[in-house]
Amino acid sequence: MSKFYSVRDLEFQIFENLDLSQLTAIPYFADHSEDTFRMVLSAAREIAERSLYPLLTAMDRNEPVLEGGRIKIHPGMKAIVKQFGEDGWINATFSHEEGGQQLPWTIHLAAGYILQAANYSASVFPFLTTGAANLIRSFGSEELIQKFTPKMYSGDWQGTMALTEPDAGSSLSDLNTLAIPTSKEGVFQIKGQKIYISCGDHDACENVIHLMLARIQGAPAGTKGISLFVVPQKDPETGEPNDVLTEGLYHKMGYKGAPIAHLMIGSNEACLGYLVGEANQGLKYMFQMMNEARLGVGMNAVAIASAAYQSSLSYAKERPQGRKITEKDLSKPQVPIIEHADVKRMLLFQKSITEGSLALLMYCSWLADQVSHGTSGDHGAMEALLDLLTPIAKSYPSEIGLQSTSAAVQILGGAGYTTDFPVEQYYREARIHPIHEGTTGIHGMDLLGRKVLIQDGLGWKALMKAIGNDIKEASQLGELEKMSAALARYQSMSNQCLQEQLVKMKQGTDVFLADATLFLELCGHLCLGWMWVRQAVSASKNFERDPVFYKGKIRAAEYFMEYELVKIESLAKRLASDSFPTLDIEKEGF
Amino acid sequence: MSKFYSVRDLEFQIFENLDLSQLTAIPYFADHSEDTFRMVLSAAREIAERSLYPLLTAMDRNEPVLEGGRIKIHPGMKAIVKQFGEDGWINATFSHEEGGQQLPWTIHLAAGYILQAANYSASVFPFLTTGAANLIRSFGSEELIQKFTPKMYSGDWQGTMALTEPDAGSSLSDLNTLAIPTSKEGVFQIKGQKIYISCGDHDACENVIHLMLARIQGAPAGTKGISLFVVPQKDPETGEPNDVLTEGLYHKMGYKGAPIAHLMIGSNEACLGYLVGEANQGLKYMFQMMNEARLGVGMNAVAIASAAYQSSLSYAKERPQGRKITEKDLSKPQVPIIEHADVKRMLLFQKSITEGSLALLMYCSWLADQVSHGTSGDHGAMEALLDLLTPIAKSYPSEIGLQSTSAAVQILGGAGYTTDFPVEQYYREARIHPIHEGTTGIHGMDLLGRKVLIQDGLGWKALMKAIGNDIKEASQLGELEKMSAALARYQSMSNQCLQEQLVKMKQGTDVFLADATLFLELCGHLCLGWMWVRQAVSASKNFERDPVFYKGKIRAAEYFMEYELVKIESLAKRLASDSFPTLDIEKEGF
Repeated sequence: MSKFYSVRDLEFQIFENLDLSQLTAIPYFADHSEDTFRMVLSAAREIAERSLYPLLTAMDRNEPVLEGGRIKIHPGMKAIVKQFGEDGWINATFSHEEGGQQLPWTIHLAAGYILQAANYSASVFPFLTTGAANLIRSFGSEELIQKFTPKMYSGDWQGTMALTEPDAGSSLSDLNTLAIPTSKEGVFQIKGQKIYISCGDHDACENVIHLMLARIQGAPAGTKGISLFVVPQKDPETGEPNDVLTEGLYHKMGYKGAPIAHLMIGSNEACLGYLVGEANQGLKYMFQMMNEARLGVGMNAVAIASAAYQSSLSYAKERPQGRKITEKDLSKPQVPIIEHADVKRMLLFQKSITEGSLALLMYCSWLADQVSHGTSGDHGAMEALLDLLTPIAKSYPSEIGLQSTSAAVQILGGAGYTTDFPVEQYYREARIHPIHEGTTGIHGMDLLGRKVLIQDGLGWKALMKAIGNDIKEASQLGELEKMSAALARYQSMSNQCLQEQLVKMKQGTDVFLADATLFLELCGHLCLGWMWVRQAVSASKNFERDPVFYKGKIRAAEYFMEYELVKIESLAKRLASDSFPTLDIEKEGF
Repeated sequence: MSKFYSVRDLEFQIFENLDLSQLTAIPYFADHSEDTFRMVLSAAREIAERSLYPLLTAMDRNEPVLEGGRIKIHPGMKAIVKQFGEDGWINATFSHEEGGQQLPWTIHLAAGYILQAANYSASVFPFLTTGAANLIRSFGSEELIQKFTPKMYSGDWQGTMALTEPDAGSSLSDLNTLAIPTSKEGVFQIKGQKIYISCGDHDACENVIHLMLARIQGAPAGTKGISLFVVPQKDPETGEPNDVLTEGLYHKMGYKGAPIAHLMIGSNEACLGYLVGEANQGLKYMFQMMNEARLGVGMNAVAIASAAYQSSLSYAKERPQGRKITEKDLSKPQVPIIEHADVKRMLLFQKSITEGSLALLMYCSWLADQVSHGTSGDHGAMEALLDLLTPIAKSYPSEIGLQSTSAAVQILGGAGYTTDFPVEQYYREARIHPIHEGTTGIHGMDLLGRKVLIQDGLGWKALMKAIGNDIKEASQLGELEKMSAALARYQSMSNQCLQEQLVKMKQGTDVFLADATLFLELCGHLCLGWMWVRQAVSASKNFERDPVFYKGKIRAAEYFMEYELVKIESLAKRLASDSFPTLDIEKEGF
């Protein structure tokens, strides 16, 4: 038993609900097997339980502070950051030549899920370093790779993603941090400001390596003139300061253990940055990594929801309160609240959301490994499907995770609102996910305005086909007939809904995309319904091996179909309407 | 312009959307008029803006502390608590003989809304004293009234409602604080523990007067053996301590300015309590007041959602980011985010929730004034309707208020997650409302298990009739035809849904009530749809007087019908099902 995730469920997700042989058959992963995967997961559990979870509350109560221009974080993080490096977490998915383990991302993400569920703030440090190093190794010169990545892999240097500026948050085309060429090729003088930089400065590392978007003097306006630079806090050779000043530290509602910085770059005209890859290709590079980061955020959301679920589940099993609704004898002892239908409903809601979302993220990472390293004939369709699923897998768990953690608070009642239990912290921490790595609104437009359209709808067709295959399989298992019929009904309704939206395109982009967020939500319900039918199939096939566990899975699948999937009904009704109050209202009308 | 509520909308709600002549025609309110009501509201606005709002952030950042057995609160509260007394807020609705102003509760609640929107923590101090004093004056002897209420009215003594115990939260029948008769009639020795007592102890008052539930030695088990006592912290005459010890102070996610205490009562066998009314009638007395308290909590939820809405609205009007979706020229300046459809959607969501819920609460308080003081022939139906609406008006704004404040955070994006803006505080504060004064689950069972059934469904019939009347009126105003038809459709669907639930009663209480929370949610959507049609009628009739404002109202009504009312579709579908995963799952299955 773990306090923050279901060990049994994660095993199910990886070893029973995914076809891992499709990964191990790929040459890049040839050295791996179920055994090595289990070792990785078990190592993650160990560091999570021994080092991360014990600091969960302390890191929330003792926020980072900005002192003398430097951010001090919780002193316990130093050893953890170093250990992430020493244990090989940062470059685990990279090649043997790079010192990595060629681990499938599927397993790396699953291990990350354990760390995130234990202590979300602590988990972001290595996650960011991996992302930054991945940009350098994928698009940087050999010189840059040699100069920066070894100390990042070892955990000595922190990596960041430095995108946001005061006047350019969601609107990346308005970035205006400036890069001025110097006499040395590939080296630029950088000047600007960056805000909301996670781990942008802290005292548990020797240097901070920013992967920063900036505009080379004279570059085209908009997204076509953005380049990517490595901007170290200190010169990697001399250790001298590189004119990256920590101007401020954000205080936040949650996720307090991770320092979020406001940086002044080159205020003294003395900041040097190193161009990664070609000029003006920065956004393209960033977005190739961003897709992984987005799935990562979806996973963070699932992890927090999972920790909240486990916390409320153990409370519900132990807390006596009231009697069964059919019991009128007050001399009988009170029963644990898990006996009450409404508490079971809130637990089933959480179970269906966390395990359903986990299944979706694991499925996406399993696709991603095949897209990155495989050579299957379906490669194109697989990639299109992954691209289509990415905004859904980022946003749906993020949004519904708020409701899931809220249900955990509700189960604890007054106790849940106090700091005596961690659920209130999870509730605060969960709120970041619909915001960072692209807001839900941005992902809605990405899905409806781009992903369903590209390559003549290849991704959507692949989704319909994949869902159809699983419906077919489920419909042949007697007890799953009803739920497979429900999924088929809502798949058809969702497809119909998309066709209606495409007709609206003719009325202009504003009409077409006005309800993109709702379409995204509808697709989220559909994909989770799909994931639950898949899980029910796995449970049904293996039933005799672990009946109690699999029965719970099938009940949760039924719950999702009965209570959540039906929400498509209302969304589709709204999406079919030709009335647009959100376009019609004038700003003076509020 | 106020930063935390819409002055124009509150005027609309009171003076345009309610028939106040039905109140002023009642003898008890005869001295009042629109003028006196406006004076009260203007006084509330003044204290809210001058004293309460400036302390909003400071009270959150400087929590109460427990020192030497006494809770110290923010020093700024002392003058405010005293002023609430001096200005007559605490007993404003009480009779002239009691020093009150015979103010309709409708106006008192509206004034409370202003205070709550300014600073929720600060607003609870007088609210609790009013509730406690109301119990004493309604059910206590003349001696108790004289002994306790004057200093409560003056703001010198704090009142509380002391119900919850460590082993009896939602299950009040398990209360076991003990009351042992003494030689003096009506005086008992009290012994027990009370937890989560709001304002249970603080240093901005001279004494704390607990209205406490306890069980007289030998009383029947369950709710039939509960009595109500006045238990002062200090003897009201001598000022000597009465053995009520502050054992602990809860630290909470939000609403931090109000101290919530854990009290030990009579640990030294030296606590005296004074019986209010008759023995064993305590819960009945408490519940008569609780209904007002529940509407009060609904209003708190609306007030916080309103403050969050106003905060995000002013940000959306000022923050430039991106361009209109149809604008491709990047040399054009960025536009305020209120120009984006998805931001307008989130603003319309908040507007429709806060103004729709405010209309519902104002309607309920308007009914309550007529029930308490009027003599109309419809009295019975009015009371039944109020009883039916109470769990809805408490729970719907509380639950959906979480989503509404969440939308405010989302509009601010990364900034909304930081403590630089108050929306994150509103998000944390809103979370208490689905918990206190009865959880949402409890109110669901109250609605479906009791309120729709009593007096042969009198309350439900009154609701259907009232909605029907407003639909009829709206259908005669051409431009509202579509929305009145939508409301009629969902009224009929809701009524059908109730009939289906009543059929399920035959399968047992557990089946009948398994989805009571969903039925409550469905009724919430229906009632808000109704309130929006009422508001649209008022707007349509007065249109020429203030076209910009009324056009906004009609758009918000359209929004609610299009995006929110349709949620009944999915809920009704689930409620019609005969599959019950929440009853079927075993606790080992989680």
